[in-house]
Amino acid sequence: MRLATLRVDGATRAARIDGADAHLLEAPDVGALLASGTDWADARVVDTRSVDDLDLAPVVPRPGKIFCVGLNYKTHIIESGEEIPAYPTLFAKFADTLLGPNDPIVLPDARTDWEGELVAVIGATVRHASLEAAAAAIAGFTVGNDVSVRTFQARTSQWLQGKCFEATAPVGPHLVTVDELGAWPEQSISLTVDGVVKQKSTTADLLFSPPELVAYISQVITLRPGDLIFTGTPGGVGQSRSPQEFLRPGQIVEVAVDGIGSIRNRCCS
Amino acid sequence: MRLATLRVDGATRAARIDGADAHLLEAPDVGALLASGTDWADARVVDTRSVDDLDLAPVVPRPGKIFCVGLNYKTHIIESGEEIPAYPTLFAKFADTLLGPNDPIVLPDARTDWEGELVAVIGATVRHASLEAAAAAIAGFTVGNDVSVRTFQARTSQWLQGKCFEATAPVGPHLVTVDELGAWPEQSISLTVDGVVKQKSTTADLLFSPPELVAYISQVITLRPGDLIFTGTPGGVGQSRSPQEFLRPGQIVEVAVDGIGSIRNRCCS
Repeated sequence: MRLATLRVDGATRAARIDGADAHLLEAPDVGALLASGTDWADARVVDTRSVDDLDLAPVVPRPGKIFCVGLNYKTHIIESGEEIPAYPTLFAKFADTLLGPNDPIVLPDARTDWEGELVAVIGATVRHASLEAAAAAIAGFTVGNDVSVRTFQARTSQWLQGKCFEATAPVGPHLVTVDELGAWPEQSISLTVDGVVKQKSTTADLLFSPPELVAYISQVITLRPGDLIFTGTPGGVGQSRSPQEFLRPGQIVEVAVDGIGSIRNRCCS
Repeated sequence: MRLATLRVDGATRAARIDGADAHLLEAPDVGALLASGTDWADARVVDTRSVDDLDLAPVVPRPGKIFCVGLNYKTHIIESGEEIPAYPTLFAKFADTLLGPNDPIVLPDARTDWEGELVAVIGATVRHASLEAAAAAIAGFTVGNDVSVRTFQARTSQWLQGKCFEATAPVGPHLVTVDELGAWPEQSISLTVDGVVKQKSTTADLLFSPPELVAYISQVITLRPGDLIFTGTPGGVGQSRSPQEFLRPGQIVEVAVDGIGSIRNRCCS
């Protein structure tokens, strides 16, 4: 099943995407739908629209927590000459950092970089979860771009200030539920800039799988419905290229994960 | 003026503290009161209780953002042999990390440490703020303990996982507004464990003042009413002592800031 959050009449609305139809539900967004515990398949439909003219919001507009993972693609770690880490490197974003899957990205400065990612969406409340409980707590997956302002990221030892800029990180287009993808999707993931492939990998290469990340994080803090985990990015980010490349006004950056879809954002100044 | 969030009848309630009286207001907590834009002095009183039998919640129970600052006391930076940083080191906590000012701290492990701090509470929505606008956006100040799980903090380059453990960071007891303290309080701050002083400094020694922190962070993202900024800790944390010391079950850890009050938490296993 596919769920989305639409912008409708100046507010947001959860929707079930069914082929060419978007069935609008009562919940104001996918986060609220997940928190309500409603069976998504049975949620009452209040209106139906064509998927061709939807204005998509971040799939969960106001997550209570957004965790992101640093080095997590094995081939990328090895090619970087890094040691295989024993623990996931975690950092945060805030709800105000998110952006809809087709919204323009206003580039904060000239060293703004891309990071295409698979994003796990939590569907249940979990703490101290076993791997099975962790897998069962994942509602599904969406696509994200962990857009990173490298100047600010490099100013101190802690990356947060380069990772949480207002309205820089698109997520969407849809939440695709685990009944379609499983709790660890093995799908190709790619990022292009103006159609040129910059990152290409498979989510099967993740060092810490989504259930492992949920189990690990839940040792630290409770995860709740609508919380997001950006699971890390493969090789090919702009600052690691030779010469370095960064996003420029007018460029289109697109992240695609097979079986989920793509997010496509125009950069502007 | 002093504001607090009380636990009353299974819910929370904002209150204005006036000497021996706690005047309960309509807002469910101080965050909601700040967001409502109500003039705190004129907010309608729905009930009055004695301050002697209050159950205090975190002064803002569900902030949208919690920023924390690393090295920020000048004398501590110099005594540590560190360079004076050009930018504040920022990291995050989550709302689920907070704890009431007198709640027990369940120690996550045997390397759980203290960090007494002055905490700024945002009262207005600001972005790209000048120093004046930043100062005007601060509602007031409270006291916090940035309790840190050093094992997890040291596992990777990013401190987040040691800094956001569930229900470990007390904040309170009250929000004291800027009309009493100014936008940069110059007050003594101390932390004791079982009555023994472990940290003692003055908030006048902050390298980045609260208005400077608000102005800086607002370059990155919008700050909103109820957001918190833990402004950093002076020297004397447990892991830097020789020999190292950590919190043990049964100990009482207390942080006091003159002009605001103190938070006092029993540690347990």
